[in-house]
Parts: sequence; C-alpha cells; structure tokens
Amino acid sequence: MDSIAKTPQPPYYAVIFTSVKGPEDKGYAKMAEHIAALGAEQQGFLGAESVREANGVGITVSYWTSLEAIAAWKNNEQHQKAQKLGADVWYDSFATRVCKVERHGLLKP
Amino acid sequence: MDSIAKTPQPPYYAVIFTSVKGPEDKGYAKMAEHIAALGAEQQGFLGAESVREANGVGITVSYWTSLEAIAAWKNNEQHQKAQKLGADVWYDSFATRVCKVERHGLLKP
Repeated sequence: MDSIAKTPQPPYYAVIFTSVKGPEDKGYAKMAEHIAALGAEQQGFLGAESVREANGVGITVSYWTSLEAIAAWKNNEQHQKAQKLGADVWYDSFATRVCKVERHGLLKP
Repeated sequence: MDSIAKTPQPPYYAVIFTSVKGPEDKGYAKMAEHIAALGAEQQGFLGAESVREANGVGITVSYWTSLEAIAAWKNNEQHQKAQKLGADVWYDSFATRVCKVERHGLLKP
C-alpha cells in the first residue's frame, strides 16, 4: 500500500473507516493484511491509505470507482467474516462513511 | 478531539488530508495543536479525526456542513500560514481530497 494513494481525477468514491482497536492482537494483524490484499484485488479498487497509532485509533480510507464496487466489496464473503470479527472482537468502536470525492485540493509533490 | 467524530446524518462534507511528515518536529506539534483548535472554532465545523504513525504517515479527516465552510477555513489567514509551512517544511508529501459524505455504513456502538 502506498502511503498516499495514486487516485485518478475525481469524481470517484471513498470509504472512511475510523476505528478504535483493543490492545490485544487476537488474530487482527494477520487478518488485516489478508483483507487489505484481497480488497486491492477487487473490481473498482483505486487505492487505500491506512494509519493506526499505538493508542489503537486508526483511519483507513479506501478509494473506489463506484458505489456498486463498494457494495460488492462490503458483501464479499471473506470481508463479511472480517467485519463480524471486527465488530465482535477487535474494535471497541468504529464508524464507516461512504463519500463521493468531488475534487482534489493541494497536493505535493 | 474525539477518536471518532460525532457527525450528524449525511449529507455533509469531509476533507481527507493524507501526509508524510519528516522526522524532525520543526515547530510542527505546537502549530498542529493550534490549528486543530482554531479549526474546531470555525463556522460549519462538525468534527475531526486524526491519526499519525511513528513512521510519519498521517491521515486527518475533518467534517463540515458545506463546501463554503471548507473554502472559508482553507482561506483562513493562520491556516494559510500553516499550509505554507506544511508544504515547505514539514511534509515530504501530502494529498487533500474534498468529499461529500453520502451515507453512514456500519457503526459501533
């Protein structure tokens, strides 16, 4: 995953996933790696950015060509399993927001 | 700043700011705190989420009622000064994306 995703000119879509993870791993790291790789193979995937601080707070933004691509990934069987583990085991709290990227602002380089 | 922003029902707007910071502080931490507090006072501000890993990669998402509120904050004099320092001194690279939040997905609690 690039630190900063190389996305095309807008419009396209973004899913902002903000979460607070509990302190124990409980299989999270392995699943997170698997799901990130699987997500990157999906039709309509444009890129992703992901950061988690030592205090457990994390933000992952994934970018997509369409709402249909986002819905298909949400319903992917392995992703569904990971979402359930996230809600039940890994995350103390989280929020998911689906957005239309309307324009790019300042950029470097 | 809450770990997860308490935003209203969509639609509203989001600015996704992804950046890679250099290893030295150079006044960054003090300015970041000031700008976060100043941003939170602006008309139309709904909340923000911000995470930076030890490797320098960070994602800050701020939420706003309108594109006009985002434009006003972008043009704020103190924020402009910080943006210039960010581009010239603190950040090796960054991207800013302006989005319309269309819906909320899964949420816990």
